[in-house]
Amino acid sequence: MNKMTPFGPPPDFADVLSAARRISGYAVHTPLIECPALNQLTGGRVFLKLENLQRTGAFKFRGAVARLSQLAQQGKTDVIAYSTGNHGQAIATAARIFGLKATIVMPADAPRSKVARAEEAGATIRFYDRRHESREEIAAELCARQGGVIVPPGDDPVIIAGQGTAALEAVRDLHELGLVPDVFVTPCGGGGLAAGCATVLREISPATALYAAEPALYNDTEMSLAAGERVPVADRNARSICDALLAPIPAELPFSINGDALRGVVTATDEQVLRAMRFALDEMKVLIEPGGAVALAAVLEGRPVLKGKSAIVLCTGGNVDPEIVARIFD
Amino acid sequence: MNKMTPFGPPPDFADVLSAARRISGYAVHTPLIECPALNQLTGGRVFLKLENLQRTGAFKFRGAVARLSQLAQQGKTDVIAYSTGNHGQAIATAARIFGLKATIVMPADAPRSKVARAEEAGATIRFYDRRHESREEIAAELCARQGGVIVPPGDDPVIIAGQGTAALEAVRDLHELGLVPDVFVTPCGGGGLAAGCATVLREISPATALYAAEPALYNDTEMSLAAGERVPVADRNARSICDALLAPIPAELPFSINGDALRGVVTATDEQVLRAMRFALDEMKVLIEPGGAVALAAVLEGRPVLKGKSAIVLCTGGNVDPEIVARIFD
Repeated sequence: MNKMTPFGPPPDFADVLSAARRISGYAVHTPLIECPALNQLTGGRVFLKLENLQRTGAFKFRGAVARLSQLAQQGKTDVIAYSTGNHGQAIATAARIFGLKATIVMPADAPRSKVARAEEAGATIRFYDRRHESREEIAAELCARQGGVIVPPGDDPVIIAGQGTAALEAVRDLHELGLVPDVFVTPCGGGGLAAGCATVLREISPATALYAAEPALYNDTEMSLAAGERVPVADRNARSICDALLAPIPAELPFSINGDALRGVVTATDEQVLRAMRFALDEMKVLIEPGGAVALAAVLEGRPVLKGKSAIVLCTGGNVDPEIVARIFD
Repeated sequence: MNKMTPFGPPPDFADVLSAARRISGYAVHTPLIECPALNQLTGGRVFLKLENLQRTGAFKFRGAVARLSQLAQQGKTDVIAYSTGNHGQAIATAARIFGLKATIVMPADAPRSKVARAEEAGATIRFYDRRHESREEIAAELCARQGGVIVPPGDDPVIIAGQGTAALEAVRDLHELGLVPDVFVTPCGGGGLAAGCATVLREISPATALYAAEPALYNDTEMSLAAGERVPVADRNARSICDALLAPIPAELPFSINGDALRGVVTATDEQVLRAMRFALDEMKVLIEPGGAVALAAVLEGRPVLKGKSAIVLCTGGNVDPEIVARIFD
């Protein structure tokens, strides 16, 4: 059962369908592509959902368009977002589309490419220190001082419903091939995307086992599932190349859904993530960012076991700084 | 009008539809993705058809499956192909699928990744010297000695029809968005793909202007259009990183179609191609091989002019050796 949170009720499947209508014509229906090399490695049939081909280079554009199109309809003029990068970029681009003013609170160590793009889209950037400041507090201050609506990356039912459209497309595309997914693996930071996927699978593919994939040092969802409540990672200052997944604790509304919906969590180290990025370039000809490749990395390590099964693996983004790309060719 | 050639009549649109049925379930329906950054640069609406996401990493798999599925039905057991790489890889993989034995004649300087993959697919490789030997003669000798059917990359109506399915998908996907392509730009080596595209456009999009894109030093189709007949490039020993497009003269059957169908030819230097590859990684998160990026490279240089127009730009493959990828990040 879903628990109550201060962020409104969790979305239901109708909310995902509504989000799908809102994003149509703005977001890319990204391809679901079978990977013969992964089939051979796993003994299953593995399909990659390539959200790195999404507009702004990450799935976050889905939730941003779903939410900001709604705010614009309601006559709002200003939005504020805090973001490790992709959410901010998505909000900046969606704000321009719907004629809203956006302020983005970003960590000072966010990849330069993500910062530059948010600025290009016309957003105002407010930097903060990821280890000593709270992005939520900064956003709340800005909100109090200048007005506007805070659009969080996870604690918002419309955002969660928007991210869920990625799973909706993927499952429907697999149905077109005559297959039902036995397994669905998604990268997981704060948990908004996983919660959106859970909302979809519960309705149209209830037998599918949903797994979240996390960086080994940012396994807050894994630890929270074990504890039965939201708990933070062991070391909030741990470093990982998975810049998109460095949430130290699951977001509240997503975890109220994921706590019951997840079959389990799989993790991958930075080294395994780099190998997965190289695999994606060699075998699929696509560039996936570290956080976006964590599900693929776990699958390449044999977790979860896919022998004899059909699986959808989400690759969530492709915004990588060139230095990281250079590293995977070392 | 199409001229007669020794390779049978040119394919018609019904042959492309038949090829589309043959490849269904084997080849990937690759995505057609709008590129906002290209829209901004060109003032048009530009859609990339991502054949680098095709199975075996290049569009060549389409023609290979169309032709080899037919040969297998006819009871053939052996096929021989000469190839700069992608055609050979496609033939090797299609041969395994349909239970045929494949021998691939490859230049000794073909990218190692392409050679390795053809071998992995179970093909026998026969190397030759691109500057001093004729691949056609070697294939004919093999054929005389060991039997089997030669499957050329261009001079075959079923291969041309198979490659045309890329254009069929792209135009139909654009129709879904309510658009008709004003312009269609395709990389061009021997000309088989361009001929397949021409066969499709003539039937379902006759107002579309079809352009071939060639490496600046391998502009044999451009020179042949100017001469009104097939003529070779000025320097057969010229070097270019566009390994997939080093045919010194247009193939005969494709040119009998392209000679009348092409609106024009655009070219790009190696340096422009490298910039296009970097652009594709930065903006679209996809890896495109040099020859596969030549149409994008020309478009980035403003050729053809796309202001106010809708355009499909084919990105034909993604099989790149790591050294080249490293170069684009220098």
